[in-house]
Amino acid sequence: MTDTEFDTPHLTLLGLGAMGTALARAWLAAEQPLTVWNRTPGRAEPLAAEGAKVAGTAAEAVAASDLVVVCLLDDASVGETLDGVDLTGKDVVNLTTGTPAEARARAEWAEQRGARYLDGGIMAVPPMIGSPESGGYVFYSGSQAVFGDHQKTLAVPAGTRYVGEDPGFAALHDVALLSAMTGMFAGVTHAFALIRKEGVVPGDLASLLAEWLTAMAGYAYGLAEHLESGDYTKGVTSNLAMMVQGNSTLLRTAAGQGVSAELLTPFTTLMERRLADGHGDEGLAGLVDMLAR
Amino acid sequence: MTDTEFDTPHLTLLGLGAMGTALARAWLAAEQPLTVWNRTPGRAEPLAAEGAKVAGTAAEAVAASDLVVVCLLDDASVGETLDGVDLTGKDVVNLTTGTPAEARARAEWAEQRGARYLDGGIMAVPPMIGSPESGGYVFYSGSQAVFGDHQKTLAVPAGTRYVGEDPGFAALHDVALLSAMTGMFAGVTHAFALIRKEGVVPGDLASLLAEWLTAMAGYAYGLAEHLESGDYTKGVTSNLAMMVQGNSTLLRTAAGQGVSAELLTPFTTLMERRLADGHGDEGLAGLVDMLAR
Ligand SMILES: NC(=O)c1ccc[n+]([C@@H]2O[C@H](COP(=O)([O-])OP(=O)(O)OC[C@H]3O[C@@H](n4cnc5c(N)ncnc54)[C@H](OP(=O)(O)O)[C@@H]3O)[C@@H](O)[C@H]2O)c1
Ligand SMILES: NC(=O)c1ccc[n+]([C@@H]2O[C@H](COP(=O)([O-])OP(=O)(O)OC[C@H]3O[C@@H](n4cnc5c(N)ncnc54)[C@H](OP(=O)(O)O)[C@@H]3O)[C@@H](O)[C@H]2O)c1
Repeated sequence: MTDTEFDTPHLTLLGLGAMGTALARAWLAAEQPLTVWNRTPGRAEPLAAEGAKVAGTAAEAVAASDLVVVCLLDDASVGETLDGVDLTGKDVVNLTTGTPAEARARAEWAEQRGARYLDGGIMAVPPMIGSPESGGYVFYSGSQAVFGDHQKTLAVPAGTRYVGEDPGFAALHDVALLSAMTGMFAGVTHAFALIRKEGVVPGDLASLLAEWLTAMAGYAYGLAEHLESGDYTKGVTSNLAMMVQGNSTLLRTAAGQGVSAELLTPFTTLMERRLADGHGDEGLAGLVDMLAR
Repeated sequence: MTDTEFDTPHLTLLGLGAMGTALARAWLAAEQPLTVWNRTPGRAEPLAAEGAKVAGTAAEAVAASDLVVVCLLDDASVGETLDGVDLTGKDVVNLTTGTPAEARARAEWAEQRGARYLDGGIMAVPPMIGSPESGGYVFYSGSQAVFGDHQKTLAVPAGTRYVGEDPGFAALHDVALLSAMTGMFAGVTHAFALIRKEGVVPGDLASLLAEWLTAMAGYAYGLAEHLESGDYTKGVTSNLAMMVQGNSTLLRTAAGQGVSAELLTPFTTLMERRLADGHGDEGLAGLVDMLAR
């Protein structure tokens, strides 16, 4: 037994999938006293060899610590795993990915069982866990007291960003960033399709894309200013009318290259509808309102 | 008359819209001897006061210099403007936005008229022209001789990047980057829609988005490696099966927030089709092939 085992409060981790295992290893590397549990017991074995205590049931695991971190497949598996388990006096930190609505319902569920609840959204893949220099981090929302009491422990596997008392906000921020990234990946996929049959080296296009997208990511600031002020035209250099006109070149190029434009057309259609409504002098803020009906 | 007017070869610029005017001002600021022409003559007046010679017709303007830069609305306006104009011995640099096919046809057209042809795709908005620190640049392709002979002059308004002898490549690179950006903007628009009715400050989300998208833009490198090697599974940390599973959270969140998922669904559909074909262990490279049929 090391000294830290007496100084540092015990921690319980439920779920040893790819992400749970990475979290466990980061904590073990930091000499964090740890009890783990996984539905399929075999996944706990290597961690036992690395110093984790292995509980036979979820209830036993929860009983071992005041702080219980949950990292399971989805919200349903959290409900199943903790069904009937005594949560009185526990601090539950749920890192399982879900929707804001699921997080809010899970927070209420946990509080009704006498627990304090903090939700988390992990902005990292397992190889980034335990490597602060990787830039990975976790959004947290819900009980500020839980976050304050355990921030040091939570900061071991990845950076921490607390985004508010609303337990749904961590998931909301997580999903907002992943949705934007999905759009970017769709655009990048289309870009590579355009050069697929041409003598352009994919790696060369990749550097140009990475540089260009990084430069253009700042567009989000202007969009935010418009949404905050309600003035959707202020300081617009490329307005909707110009963007729609420019888009026709993108679509004609796709056609000329034999590339399906299915990933671009919904945005084009949305812009055209806003333009037809007489908003050609705006940026993109009006489209946000059209989507959020 | 300044000394430079004797040292620096004369340049002709056709087109004084927002972009043409910015180009003209950058060259005039660098004491580049300049003849300009615009269909609507009024737009040339302020430039005359700043030192430009103003030609009465496009033919007169072309006759004034060996180097002729064209920046008009679209390819059709270039054809109209230069119809019947003697291009023998001229170096035509066409910065008008168009498709790769239009650029290739325009190159042939110009060469048949005795000109050397360089095509350009401007990766900047007018306020970035003449400010090297803005990061704006122009893709060039076509005659390498024209590029070599005039690079110093062409570098005055914005950075220069020569991407190959194929006159369609500048437009291809231009459109590839703009298409990827369009996808990113669609994703960002969706992200703001998700928080539209929540107590999240748009500016706060903007910083998170800018940081996250910048970090994730490097995904293009991995995709390029897969396309180059033909091995679409090597080193994949988030495979298609996981992305499709993750996407269901994005779509359920959109539904829960009352946000239309129309900007995300085509990409989800494409991923699901590839997954159904048994490629769950790949990254996104297979989708590129599906688009480029
Ligand atoms: N991996 C990533 O890149 C990543 C990134 C960000 C966030 N996340 C999130 O982290 C969470 C865990 O992801 P992961 O990558 O570790 O997933 P994973 O490798 O698929 O592991 C899933 C875990 O959930 C358990 N589980 C599934 N259904 C269960 C049930 N009904 N009852 C009890 N346990 C159940 C599994 O137990 P068994 O071993 O018994 O099957 C396993 O421990 C997910 O919410 C995921 O969205 C993952
Ligand atoms: N502005 C940008 O942000 C930007 C960025 C990158 C690339 N570009 C490209 O740069 C080019 C010029 O853009 P711009 O912003 O300067 O556009 P603009 O402000 O709309 O100006 C269009 C120019 O084309 C001329 N024109 C249009 N039809 C013509 C015709 N049939 N015959 C002769 N001249 C004609 C116009 O002359 P009149 O004055 O007589 O109408 C004007 O000089 C476009 O290809 C655009 O895609 C622009």
